[in-house]
Amino acid sequence: MLKKYEQMAQRVNLTNIFMAKSVIKRYLNRTSLTHYSELSRLLGCEAFVKHENHNPTGSFKIRGALNFFHHLSQAELEAGVLVATRGNHGLAMAWAGQWFCVPCTVVVPENNNPEINRIIESYGAEVIVHGADFYDAQSYCEELVDSAGYYYVQQGNEPEILNGHATMAVEILEDLPEADVIICPIGGGAGCASILKTARAFRPDIEIIGVEPQSAPSFYSSWKKGEIVVLDEAHTIADGLAARSVFHLPYVILRDAINDVVLLTEEEIFEGIRMALSATHNLAEAAGAVSLMAAYKIRDRLAGKKVVMIMSGGNLNIETLKMAIDR
Amino acid sequence: MLKKYEQMAQRVNLTNIFMAKSVIKRYLNRTSLTHYSELSRLLGCEAFVKHENHNPTGSFKIRGALNFFHHLSQAELEAGVLVATRGNHGLAMAWAGQWFCVPCTVVVPENNNPEINRIIESYGAEVIVHGADFYDAQSYCEELVDSAGYYYVQQGNEPEILNGHATMAVEILEDLPEADVIICPIGGGAGCASILKTARAFRPDIEIIGVEPQSAPSFYSSWKKGEIVVLDEAHTIADGLAARSVFHLPYVILRDAINDVVLLTEEEIFEGIRMALSATHNLAEAAGAVSLMAAYKIRDRLAGKKVVMIMSGGNLNIETLKMAIDR
Repeated sequence: MLKKYEQMAQRVNLTNIFMAKSVIKRYLNRTSLTHYSELSRLLGCEAFVKHENHNPTGSFKIRGALNFFHHLSQAELEAGVLVATRGNHGLAMAWAGQWFCVPCTVVVPENNNPEINRIIESYGAEVIVHGADFYDAQSYCEELVDSAGYYYVQQGNEPEILNGHATMAVEILEDLPEADVIICPIGGGAGCASILKTARAFRPDIEIIGVEPQSAPSFYSSWKKGEIVVLDEAHTIADGLAARSVFHLPYVILRDAINDVVLLTEEEIFEGIRMALSATHNLAEAAGAVSLMAAYKIRDRLAGKKVVMIMSGGNLNIETLKMAIDR
Repeated sequence: MLKKYEQMAQRVNLTNIFMAKSVIKRYLNRTSLTHYSELSRLLGCEAFVKHENHNPTGSFKIRGALNFFHHLSQAELEAGVLVATRGNHGLAMAWAGQWFCVPCTVVVPENNNPEINRIIESYGAEVIVHGADFYDAQSYCEELVDSAGYYYVQQGNEPEILNGHATMAVEILEDLPEADVIICPIGGGAGCASILKTARAFRPDIEIIGVEPQSAPSFYSSWKKGEIVVLDEAHTIADGLAARSVFHLPYVILRDAINDVVLLTEEEIFEGIRMALSATHNLAEAAGAVSLMAAYKIRDRLAGKKVVMIMSGGNLNIETLKMAIDR
């Protein structure tokens, strides 16, 4: 079963990553890797933040989406794509879909943030509300794709999405080739796996540390067990990381190569949002702030090192912000 | 008296602005001009935000600082510079000063945010705390400069600072050459004047609208009176706009050319911070959020237009953020 994904992982490589870089630069500015002295003081290391929250649609997912569409055939573009999402993946596919004139159908669960649904629609995508949670939405996509002609995009299992995401890591190493550690959130695993694959190609000794919520340790459990574990539930304020299971492709990339995974409590995740506000003056979504808090949690191990923290997204709603700063 | 500044204004021109662009691109990424559909819906126009808050040091001031240092002589660089600031100008000069190895002395008033002072020091600058407000700090600079050998940098009256700031407008028109309106906060006036000068060179018909706090209308009062007015006081939550007077150089550029100035109450400024959070998912400082709220205030006049709002900075402290979202 995993054999297929091990072969697929070969397609996530420097040649394809640099091709992706030439694609996405037509649409996106480079994001900043910013050194913060207050954060450095707090963490006792040289602290750099990669600002993926500054991208259009507010997350790194736009990188993979653009590169994915670039590689579709004309027939596939015309048939359109189908995605399941609670937020950033759908926003990215719908936004990028506009550039490629590809009809985009986005399935969201019933409790989804209506503001996010409205923004996805404003990018010209069709939004279908279905199912109690993300997994129901995904299952519905599998039903739909049998009857309709679209391409069902499973974000974590598409090599060209990972090659797109990997451009984050190229930019990081262009700006800070001597980075010692990169800390990255893990939801479905595509972002972290693409960073690991790129960074290790340049720098076999660079440390890659993942972060997951204690209440949704889908990669961590799989990594410890040595096979993909599907959690019964995954409830966390970091909705971008509320994955009941990691995708297969990232799993095979990460399992023998990642240095460590830090698990955070919900309280610690809220603390990360506050840290992003006070030490970087950025609004990070919960998933986007976990790498800062993970660095704080393992600060003894990071002392004096050059540490890059991925701020993966910024789509935090005001209610959650209020909860974070009122604590 | 103004004759000198009218001549100086000739040095803020496209040739020098494009030279500045070639300078700053060695140090900075382009900032994004992002289209927001939620904000467009709210304002009834095509709403674009220029994200100067994404710059290192969190504001557009870094553009002018880099270009300014680039034009100093070796002797001037060695003698060092002196600036008065409450925040963004000092952060920018100290940060940029590191690249040029120029000793930087920064005078801040007594009530200044200690966190800002600490960050300025972390960039290797010497911080001197003096005086009850910004104007006292400025006066102290004038005393100091008589006895010491440094270059006293009055940010608003340096053509190469304005040429640096003007690169914002070049980027805006590269991304959206058909923009109808640019809305920009006015503190000392350097940012708005540099944008006006650039944008009008490309597009004589583009509307430039300034924004000031009702409680600190230093440019507005001068513009209406036809001469520079010094206010008795300027207390506003938008500390980046708490100027008791506009600088001479921006004044002579703006006085006969700006289309309008929108004045905002303190309540409206807080509302702007909330609008930035909910409609763009960005932490804007009060001064950085006023262009959004000004657009909302004059939305009838903007209907259907392509409107660029300058989010000039993001250095909002948690206490002010709390005040804004608890209202």
